[in-house]
Amino acid sequence: MNYIENHTKAENLKIAYIGGGSRGWARKLMSDLALEPAMSGSVYLYDIDREAAAANVIIGNMYSAKEEAVGNWKYFAADTLKEALSGADFVVISILPATLQEMGSDIHTPEKYGIYQSVGDTSGPGGIVRALRTVPMYKVFAEGIRDYCPNAWVINYTNPMTMCMSALYKYFPKIKAFGCCHEVFRTQNLICDAYNEKYGTNLERHDIHTKVLGINHFTWITEARYGNEDLWDIYADFADKYYEKGYGKPDTNWMNSNFACRHRVKFDLFKRYNCIAAAGDRHLAEFCPGKWYLENPDVVHKWEFGLTPISWRTRVLGDWKRDTVDFVEGRKPLEFNQSGEEGVLQMKALLGLSSMITNVNLPNVGQISNLPLGYIVETNACFGHDSVTPVTAGAMPRGVDNLVQRVAYNQELTVDAAISGNYEDAFKAFVNDPLVTISHVDARKLFNEMLENTKEYLPAYNDYLNK
Amino acid sequence: MNYIENHTKAENLKIAYIGGGSRGWARKLMSDLALEPAMSGSVYLYDIDREAAAANVIIGNMYSAKEEAVGNWKYFAADTLKEALSGADFVVISILPATLQEMGSDIHTPEKYGIYQSVGDTSGPGGIVRALRTVPMYKVFAEGIRDYCPNAWVINYTNPMTMCMSALYKYFPKIKAFGCCHEVFRTQNLICDAYNEKYGTNLERHDIHTKVLGINHFTWITEARYGNEDLWDIYADFADKYYEKGYGKPDTNWMNSNFACRHRVKFDLFKRYNCIAAAGDRHLAEFCPGKWYLENPDVVHKWEFGLTPISWRTRVLGDWKRDTVDFVEGRKPLEFNQSGEEGVLQMKALLGLSSMITNVNLPNVGQISNLPLGYIVETNACFGHDSVTPVTAGAMPRGVDNLVQRVAYNQELTVDAAISGNYEDAFKAFVNDPLVTISHVDARKLFNEMLENTKEYLPAYNDYLNK
Amino acid sequence: MNYIENHTKAENLKIAYIGGGSRGWARKLMSDLALEPAMSGSVYLYDIDREAAAANVIIGNMYSAKEEAVGNWKYFAADTLKEALSGADFVVISILPATLQEMGSDIHTPEKYGIYQSVGDTSGPGGIVRALRTVPMYKVFAEGIRDYCPNAWVINYTNPMTMCMSALYKYFPKIKAFGCCHEVFRTQNLICDAYNEKYGTNLERHDIHTKVLGINHFTWITEARYGNEDLWDIYADFADKYYEKGYGKPDTNWMNSNFACRHRVKFDLFKRYNCIAAAGDRHLAEFCPGKWYLENPDVVHKWEFGLTPISWRTRVLGDWKRDTVDFVEGRKPLEFNQSGEEGVLQMKALLGLSSMITNVNLPNVGQISNLPLGYIVETNACFGHDSVTPVTAGAMPRGVDNLVQRVAYNQELTVDAAISGNYEDAFKAFVNDPLVTISHVDARKLFNEMLENTKEYLPAYNDYLNK
Amino acid sequence: MNYIENHTKAENLKIAYIGGGSRGWARKLMSDLALEPAMSGSVYLYDIDREAAAANVIIGNMYSAKEEAVGNWKYFAADTLKEALSGADFVVISILPATLQEMGSDIHTPEKYGIYQSVGDTSGPGGIVRALRTVPMYKVFAEGIRDYCPNAWVINYTNPMTMCMSALYKYFPKIKAFGCCHEVFRTQNLICDAYNEKYGTNLERHDIHTKVLGINHFTWITEARYGNEDLWDIYADFADKYYEKGYGKPDTNWMNSNFACRHRVKFDLFKRYNCIAAAGDRHLAEFCPGKWYLENPDVVHKWEFGLTPISWRTRVLGDWKRDTVDFVEGRKPLEFNQSGEEGVLQMKALLGLSSMITNVNLPNVGQISNLPLGYIVETNACFGHDSVTPVTAGAMPRGVDNLVQRVAYNQELTVDAAISGNYEDAFKAFVNDPLVTISHVDARKLFNEMLENTKEYLPAYNDYLNK
Repeated sequence: MNYIENHTKAENLKIAYIGGGSRGWARKLMSDLALEPAMSGSVYLYDIDREAAAANVIIGNMYSAKEEAVGNWKYFAADTLKEALSGADFVVISILPATLQEMGSDIHTPEKYGIYQSVGDTSGPGGIVRALRTVPMYKVFAEGIRDYCPNAWVINYTNPMTMCMSALYKYFPKIKAFGCCHEVFRTQNLICDAYNEKYGTNLERHDIHTKVLGINHFTWITEARYGNEDLWDIYADFADKYYEKGYGKPDTNWMNSNFACRHRVKFDLFKRYNCIAAAGDRHLAEFCPGKWYLENPDVVHKWEFGLTPISWRTRVLGDWKRDTVDFVEGRKPLEFNQSGEEGVLQMKALLGLSSMITNVNLPNVGQISNLPLGYIVETNACFGHDSVTPVTAGAMPRGVDNLVQRVAYNQELTVDAAISGNYEDAFKAFVNDPLVTISHVDARKLFNEMLENTKEYLPAYNDYLNK
Repeated sequence: MNYIENHTKAENLKIAYIGGGSRGWARKLMSDLALEPAMSGSVYLYDIDREAAAANVIIGNMYSAKEEAVGNWKYFAADTLKEALSGADFVVISILPATLQEMGSDIHTPEKYGIYQSVGDTSGPGGIVRALRTVPMYKVFAEGIRDYCPNAWVINYTNPMTMCMSALYKYFPKIKAFGCCHEVFRTQNLICDAYNEKYGTNLERHDIHTKVLGINHFTWITEARYGNEDLWDIYADFADKYYEKGYGKPDTNWMNSNFACRHRVKFDLFKRYNCIAAAGDRHLAEFCPGKWYLENPDVVHKWEFGLTPISWRTRVLGDWKRDTVDFVEGRKPLEFNQSGEEGVLQMKALLGLSSMITNVNLPNVGQISNLPLGYIVETNACFGHDSVTPVTAGAMPRGVDNLVQRVAYNQELTVDAAISGNYEDAFKAFVNDPLVTISHVDARKLFNEMLENTKEYLPAYNDYLNK
Repeated sequence: MNYIENHTKAENLKIAYIGGGSRGWARKLMSDLALEPAMSGSVYLYDIDREAAAANVIIGNMYSAKEEAVGNWKYFAADTLKEALSGADFVVISILPATLQEMGSDIHTPEKYGIYQSVGDTSGPGGIVRALRTVPMYKVFAEGIRDYCPNAWVINYTNPMTMCMSALYKYFPKIKAFGCCHEVFRTQNLICDAYNEKYGTNLERHDIHTKVLGINHFTWITEARYGNEDLWDIYADFADKYYEKGYGKPDTNWMNSNFACRHRVKFDLFKRYNCIAAAGDRHLAEFCPGKWYLENPDVVHKWEFGLTPISWRTRVLGDWKRDTVDFVEGRKPLEFNQSGEEGVLQMKALLGLSSMITNVNLPNVGQISNLPLGYIVETNACFGHDSVTPVTAGAMPRGVDNLVQRVAYNQELTVDAAISGNYEDAFKAFVNDPLVTISHVDARKLFNEMLENTKEYLPAYNDYLNK
Repeated sequence: MNYIENHTKAENLKIAYIGGGSRGWARKLMSDLALEPAMSGSVYLYDIDREAAAANVIIGNMYSAKEEAVGNWKYFAADTLKEALSGADFVVISILPATLQEMGSDIHTPEKYGIYQSVGDTSGPGGIVRALRTVPMYKVFAEGIRDYCPNAWVINYTNPMTMCMSALYKYFPKIKAFGCCHEVFRTQNLICDAYNEKYGTNLERHDIHTKVLGINHFTWITEARYGNEDLWDIYADFADKYYEKGYGKPDTNWMNSNFACRHRVKFDLFKRYNCIAAAGDRHLAEFCPGKWYLENPDVVHKWEFGLTPISWRTRVLGDWKRDTVDFVEGRKPLEFNQSGEEGVLQMKALLGLSSMITNVNLPNVGQISNLPLGYIVETNACFGHDSVTPVTAGAMPRGVDNLVQRVAYNQELTVDAAISGNYEDAFKAFVNDPLVTISHVDARKLFNEMLENTKEYLPAYNDYLNK
């Protein structure tokens, strides 16, 4: 191909970042943009936490000013969503819906009823209630995009991924949005580990090809190849070997310890279904019937993954805030390297500067043949100029189909209930969640308590709550 | 319509009865046939228990000889399936797959692992293992029908209904078969009770119209009307009133006590989904997540339905055998009345002597829009001359869709595993059953033990068992 | 069933009749209502031709006043659509979209390009352009029903049936509407003729059972039974016998001659597809490739059906107008008998006073498995209290599937183009019509000329026309 | 990616070539294999024309012996299909079904009835009758592949492509087969021409990205991009500019003149549907209603494409035979360059030596959302190690959907009729073909005459013919 000669650069781009005060995703993007020579332009950070956005403007411009920086980007704080979005080429959304206080309720209120959640932001009671308060926020984003930058490409990082994406498409059906998540990447690296351990090689995820299908955080790999080698049996041996003891050292760094898992859930699902579940065990467990992996903290401990208490998140947030001040005031140097995330690569491809195939979350147009059309699903897709085209993945494998459909239907129902404000529909989804293995009466009490705790963000449900 | 004048009688019919030694369904049919003036012919009873069939020949002919008998039917014992089927107009199948010993294993082995089943013949571990040994028997029936009476109408009463029907259609796709079950009838009568209690009337199920959809034993009613009255709110009030205390007196007759329920499960499902679950609570509970109604015998007791131990079935069988001898030897008079079953009415309609609409189990040709085509589903259907045509029921209601799909997919997988002899596929279905809320390792132990207990009927799985 | 005793009458009903000045459908309804003892109430006639509505008020009340009238109905002219619809229990729609002048253009303009149409109101260039001006009128009706009587049952008689129905559901998705047409009835009677000719009997359509599926005016019968007799071979012999010479005497009464056909098209389609096409030949021919039956007037003549020129319609309209004056002024007695139409029977069933199965046009919820869900299709349906439930008809037969899909897709596209005002989409449908066997350039000329002729009713397309 | 280092070569491959005496496809493959350094092995040529295969063995080995040849391939003639297939890694099928005599009947018999075909091997009466005699041959191939090389990848080049592919999958559902055709390539080059003409560049098809969907020879391009440029408007201008006069010089070389077209059909379809039809005009015309482009030879001439008479094919075949002798005897030098076909590139990718995306014919697993699953469709697909995965293309565009479905359904029916030997089903397909715009009676005469002419290859239909 010779076109790269003609189009080496895309300039004067505008990126709108909703949740622009974010410490994780935003800074990875800043770093990756600074290291990408083919693109330049401006980034508008919009956040209801104005101070956080302002700090990130400083940090973003510090990245651009670095000697090694080859990308030419300027950072601005946007006062309004409209200012951020107007004329944007790309929109990135990574927000915390409400505050850690609401997330604390999502995670811990169910524990009173014996329901334990390892994350609480996707599936389970926490995921459902989080969706109820997030969908109205996404209404605002979708309508803003429709009005101020209808042709922009939108990348969502926020959880619950499936339900955020679904809301975007329901509120603005012509939106050009996809959702990205790195959980599959980590499992691809685990497959590489299996190969590397056997052959003493040093493969990384980009070296292998995998067939990916499912819904976010409950995605599955059904084929894995390296060159002309089929990696299936190698992974199977690896899963056997580490089934009992788990794989990987427990992370001693407390900041990571809650995310670490030793893949015992993943290996167990492999034994059950002969498919590679492609997400962290903390996420996978929340999609399975409650007794399997989350019956109680002892069972969780036995499976060697972790519950993530809100206290941990609060502590991390404090550290991050301190770090931010240190960065801004120059007391602490910025990390500066490729993040391993794919957002910037995807933008390049969408600009026609390259092409790539990777897994993303998109409405089903046939890529998964046994989930309803229109549902948000995760599969491989081809990225090219102004287009993201899913690759067919066929049917969810038998046995797994059932587990996935159960949550897929439930999430669709949750989004519709969030849009309509129908309390009973929301409760139907709630009571049907795999983790809600309690009586109808208790489930209603729990649901109401969780809504009550977060009612500031749930005006549509106040009538029910006040009855 | 004037045709009835011209075609008042269908004569020289041949009915083949597979499982012709049956005490329940067979004798109801005999009684109903004797009371039906428009049809006559011969009934061939085929049973591996030759003695039981012989006794039923005597009893059948006793019915025909009764003074009140208006139908002219002769009974014969068939030595071979071929003899029974050759030239048959109708084939009735009601068998016990294997013996009560295997059924004992189906029901009670899972209890060692804390899994309680109230019936154990449809869903749950028992239903799955029962299907594995029943499907090969149905292969023989389907191929016999294909070879000896391909145009016959086939009525199945055997459980697991869905999987028996599925096997018939998979082995002989052109079969004209449907499956009948009276569980929906009982719920229709319950709806009448609600009306009668309110208005002092005396409605029976034939007086009302209901919209029925689902899979056998997990069927749902989404509309109920009497004349121009909508019965929904009446049922809702009734469900409210009896939610806590249950409806109906506990049956003091021990022979019935195991089937009796006080509908608390049904009312609870109504509260959750605003749909009327249309089967006995013993069946409904087995389709729901294990913790809901079957967590342990105390919970079952609280919900006021019953576990049906094999000891009870054994005792009943003994009584029935004694009764049979008494009937044959004239010591005990035969009951002689309309059974309330619809088999004979359906035959009449298929002969063009009448028409009717009732609920039956058939392959999905679109009657339920959100279950896969080809799956066996239960909905209303129109019966006419040589035709059974399902009435559309639309989509399974939201929330319920999920519960139904879960088991529908699992049952399809079970049948395919029974046909292919694929042990791992069967286990995938097993481990995915809503009642199997135990670890992978324990589930495999349990599954293997259940197969081992019944291996005489599972030659296809012996290789796995003997590894 | 005993409920009929309790609910013998429905009183104080309100029927809104849109197109209430109609001479055909409206008077049949008046006559049938007067003869129906179980219902009474008022009928509000709404028509843009106020005079015609006023005349029908007089005629309606004359029916009610007849000695033989057992139904108690009062007729009123409504000044506004709102007045007619407010609180209505039933809405009947039978309008002439625009005037005979526009219909003249629909029928005769294509003849300049060698395209002959036998009716011009359903398929073909005329059907498409008629739809473009009818859909905006149905927007008004649908929104009126939504606002003033959202729970009313709506019966449509207007052509193009499929596209009128589709517009109603697209503008008000919760509408309870179905479409009725007597074309299938006539074919059912033809099947009776075949039987009667063979056996010297006197069957009428209500005596037989047929399986009906397709789209309006291109509906097919795939099973036909009388009691326990299959009528297929009898019809096949009949079609053979009359294939060459046609069946039935040419009607000498000029008023009927244009509707008469001698069924040669129907018999020819039977030979091609072994299915009974169930509409008049004039309609059937318009759905088939242009060369088959409508190549030129000689070919039409050879197939022994008729083109219906606008001059004929104009003459009939004049006669009807004179008759109306004669009726109103008492110079001519009103005909007073059962019309053979089913509208009043359907209303009775919807009121819970009876039940029935008949063919109607409804959105596809699965009744036809190989047409898209949501498309308007014609099949049997069960009528009961406040419900119309389609009976499954399975797949369109092979070979026929293709012919039907072609027009079904085209009609869906036409409705969407009428709603969006997208000229190019409308033209895509136009150029894809089976009768439009002319070049692209000529097709565009023809289409523009037809739009120009009727532009008073096509404001959405004026921009294109004036370019 | 680093794996290419480790796996630079695939050796000892076996390719079976069915139709190995072929002059066109086989020699292109030989040439491409000789120029590919990463693969080596043996090619077994199987042909019922043993002499032709023997000549190709000599020619193949001459290619391998050339100095510039970097691939190491040995050629053998196989005496039996079994010998050719046993242990093959790849199977290529490119046959002439029967002889030019039968093809002469396919093309010219319909002309007696005024039906003109420009190719006669895909759609139209010729395509259908050709399929009827080809499907039984493909039964032999499919069963041979199943028995002797079930894991081989199979590449089909034979027409009618869709029906050959369909037969392979119906006879051996687990086959790993795809179909290749260069018609889309030529249209991609035409799009490049449009760009090159505007900008003076020199783009070729590999430089651009296109979205491809449809059925073979009636495939459509709905997106075309070069780097970050959308090519749509450029193509639209080009189509406008050349709409009247056609594009390209008429080819003066008689050998090509029959394949040459001046794209007026393509441009006309673009005007109708705003989609780029991606095949030669000779093929496209045969899928459209008969009056559009093939009404008579004058119309064909006006649209500036050509009918391909059998006399031309006979002459070319004679030339080819003479050339073959000249090649073998060294009187004429072999052409030796990249053919532009993709077969060898696809093999490389399937071996894990590379990856690529290109358009191929495969069963629909969801890549086209509005054609039935299982139908053979043409879209882009990703090639990787042992896998070909279609990329989703969404729905056929509105308007085009109709044209494509019509032939897709008809081809499916034709294949089923060829398998079942059902004459009436075959005739239903025949009479429904867009080009068969003649009466039922004439169509039957024509069909019977075409079958009679080719009956040596149609044993299943002899009974009908001899009645």
